Amino acid sequence: MKVISIGLLGLGTVGSGVVQILESHQDKLMHQVGCSISVKKILVKDTAKERLVEIDKDMLTEYPEDILSNPEIDVVIEVMGGIEETRGYLTKAIKNKKHIVTANKDLMALYGPELLELATENQCDLFYEASVAGGIPILRGLVDGLSSDRITKMMGIVNGTTNFILTKMSKEGRAYEDVLKEAQELGFAEADPTADVGGLDAARKMAILSTLGFSMNIGLNDVEVQGITEISEEDLRYSKKLGYTMKLIGVASRSGERVEVSVQPALLPEAHPLASVNNEYNAVYVYGEAVGETMFYGPGAGSLPTATAVVSDMVTVIKNMRLGVNGRSAVSPQYPKQLKDATEIFAKFFLRLHVQDEVGVLARITNLFAEHGVGFDKILQLPLDEKESSEIVLVTHTATLAAFEQIKQKLHDYNMVREVKSTYRVEGEDNK
Amino acid sequence: MKVISIGLLGLGTVGSGVVQILESHQDKLMHQVGCSISVKKILVKDTAKERLVEIDKDMLTEYPEDILSNPEIDVVIEVMGGIEETRGYLTKAIKNKKHIVTANKDLMALYGPELLELATENQCDLFYEASVAGGIPILRGLVDGLSSDRITKMMGIVNGTTNFILTKMSKEGRAYEDVLKEAQELGFAEADPTADVGGLDAARKMAILSTLGFSMNIGLNDVEVQGITEISEEDLRYSKKLGYTMKLIGVASRSGERVEVSVQPALLPEAHPLASVNNEYNAVYVYGEAVGETMFYGPGAGSLPTATAVVSDMVTVIKNMRLGVNGRSAVSPQYPKQLKDATEIFAKFFLRLHVQDEVGVLARITNLFAEHGVGFDKILQLPLDEKESSEIVLVTHTATLAAFEQIKQKLHDYNMVREVKSTYRVEGEDNK
Repeated sequence: MKVISIGLLGLGTVGSGVVQILESHQDKLMHQVGCSISVKKILVKDTAKERLVEIDKDMLTEYPEDILSNPEIDVVIEVMGGIEETRGYLTKAIKNKKHIVTANKDLMALYGPELLELATENQCDLFYEASVAGGIPILRGLVDGLSSDRITKMMGIVNGTTNFILTKMSKEGRAYEDVLKEAQELGFAEADPTADVGGLDAARKMAILSTLGFSMNIGLNDVEVQGITEISEEDLRYSKKLGYTMKLIGVASRSGERVEVSVQPALLPEAHPLASVNNEYNAVYVYGEAVGETMFYGPGAGSLPTATAVVSDMVTVIKNMRLGVNGRSAVSPQYPKQLKDATEIFAKFFLRLHVQDEVGVLARITNLFAEHGVGFDKILQLPLDEKESSEIVLVTHTATLAAFEQIKQKLHDYNMVREVKSTYRVEGEDNK
Repeated sequence: MKVISIGLLGLGTVGSGVVQILESHQDKLMHQVGCSISVKKILVKDTAKERLVEIDKDMLTEYPEDILSNPEIDVVIEVMGGIEETRGYLTKAIKNKKHIVTANKDLMALYGPELLELATENQCDLFYEASVAGGIPILRGLVDGLSSDRITKMMGIVNGTTNFILTKMSKEGRAYEDVLKEAQELGFAEADPTADVGGLDAARKMAILSTLGFSMNIGLNDVEVQGITEISEEDLRYSKKLGYTMKLIGVASRSGERVEVSVQPALLPEAHPLASVNNEYNAVYVYGEAVGETMFYGPGAGSLPTATAVVSDMVTVIKNMRLGVNGRSAVSPQYPKQLKDATEIFAKFFLRLHVQDEVGVLARITNLFAEHGVGFDKILQLPLDEKESSEIVLVTHTATLAAFEQIKQKLHDYNMVREVKSTYRVEGEDNK
């Protein structure tokens, strides 16, 4: 029986998970692909280091060439992370006609199109299901399951760290710093959490999702990003009072040929399926013209879910090898990139203001909104402890981002407005 | 450019949806499959009848042979429903080397294995994604996305009619008959709703799902079925009081090599993701050893979602045709069927009883449970309007179905027990 040889780049938690699954599911995998699968070489930084899984020391190497240029290796699985160096490794491997499976969203968000093109040229497969929301087969869903539909909007909770933090802050009324510390202790947040809490990680995933879903080359720079570090306990309290749940939401929407991709904290109605995606879980909500609303839900990260996605991709590569059809599954984007401007982006908006508590202040503010053609869904005015001040919290009807930004700017300039405390988009109501 | 010709069996709402999608997405589909797709012939009962979509009358035929034995037709899409006659049509089409896409769960639950085998023999594809939960790419998820995982349990809300009825009954406190009537008026329930409300439709889908998920030939007769017609308003009220939501749940679980597949009304904790799947929506929750919990959510039926799934399958068939690899994707079940008996099925149970209100009655009942080694999670006792009667509502800790059935039998025989009003499984807490 033919043996397919795997080269593994990296042996951290995901790499160890891959080795573990390949061992424990050997029978099932053989049944599926009709041949035997063996890990030949594993690239590590230090062959002497203690490992999470029991491994034959002879398999380990510190020399990338032992994998990238090894004629015996058929498939390279990249779970080492990193960008520039890794890009070089994969480029070399593809030129040596090796098929690639990667879990690297940073790499794919930046160099995905380039690497996919190179793979197609070399008749190699390059699969990256594990790069977005590890445990959810969302990319396959977009490529296969919804292939005959026109996707008009995707909303994703695609970062487990921030979802864990926001869930704890909302449900337990705890402060950001406090929850971040717990997340770090539990291993849900990195020692340096900047890429997660700043929204960058989610933005990378939204770039990958929207490139596939809209068949358009969306890069990281096309994604507007705002993280969760500025969210206050007041914002969360008011959200709840108004019947909303705050989530870090990646939005990718299309009207006609023009798209918007962004990541920001946004309010969702409590009954929305995304609102009950809690803790470290991820989910992607997809609106298709024909299918209507679908959602994919699961663990966003974790070594075993990610390793499962990696092995699933490897199974597809090996099936393709046996059928002799590698390198034909990547479909290059069909449409040129066209981004919406702020006059084409529609949402409802939440606004919290501190104002001087004087006669006519609310009238002045509501007039301002009316002048820009923006109506209200909800308004609350409450006195503040501070002398002669009150707090106004409101949610608009659907308006353009451009109109809302203009209103915000004017509010800043009004004397009676002490401070614009916060603004958020409200998603999932009627502005699909 | 090559043209792929489609023969359509049936032109009801789903068939019309397929025609509509093929027309409106012609460009996108050509981009994906690299050739043009044309509907050649459509089998209908009456060519003279008024149609939902504009159609060239010449395409319509009342003679199945015009499609089944037409050498110009490459792919047969079956959306006519029915079982025995349809089985004959598809058998003939496959023998004539035509690839098949079907949305017919009744057929697949009964004759799936036979038809799949015939298709493989004839190097034909047979895809049936639309047969389970039309709008959710769950079958692909099971076959591809979770291919390297070991699935231990699936729980599905796989019937839109019953979910619509139960949602309305729970949220609006309305009676079964009343909501059924509304569902029929809205088109969510058939004039004869027996197959839906009796659980048979859900059972067919669970047979298909568990055959794929467990790689074991599970037939409709292997599925224990109970419908929703006996659910009372009291049951729903108590469920809510105890923090549960009642859903018609398909359960497919595996321990070691043995499986259980059943459909019944069951209670779910309100925080469980399946509990917030409302109205006509469907969802399938999947537990994998490696991936943990994932959920697929979407519209369960409806002509456009189902048509979308049909067209997605058709895209896969055509891609396979161009690659020359049809008929190789069906994997026959790996394991022999082994069903659990009642001593191997674990769940928590809800029980509602009417008893004589006399000293010692609760002690007698709790002793009975203790004798069978079953503990309690929750107990409520309340006086009834009826003289000298009370109602006892309890939820057990995890127990075997066998033990619970024995207890139930003994309760029936006790004099002080006036009536065992209802029993339900409680799922989604700790008995994964």
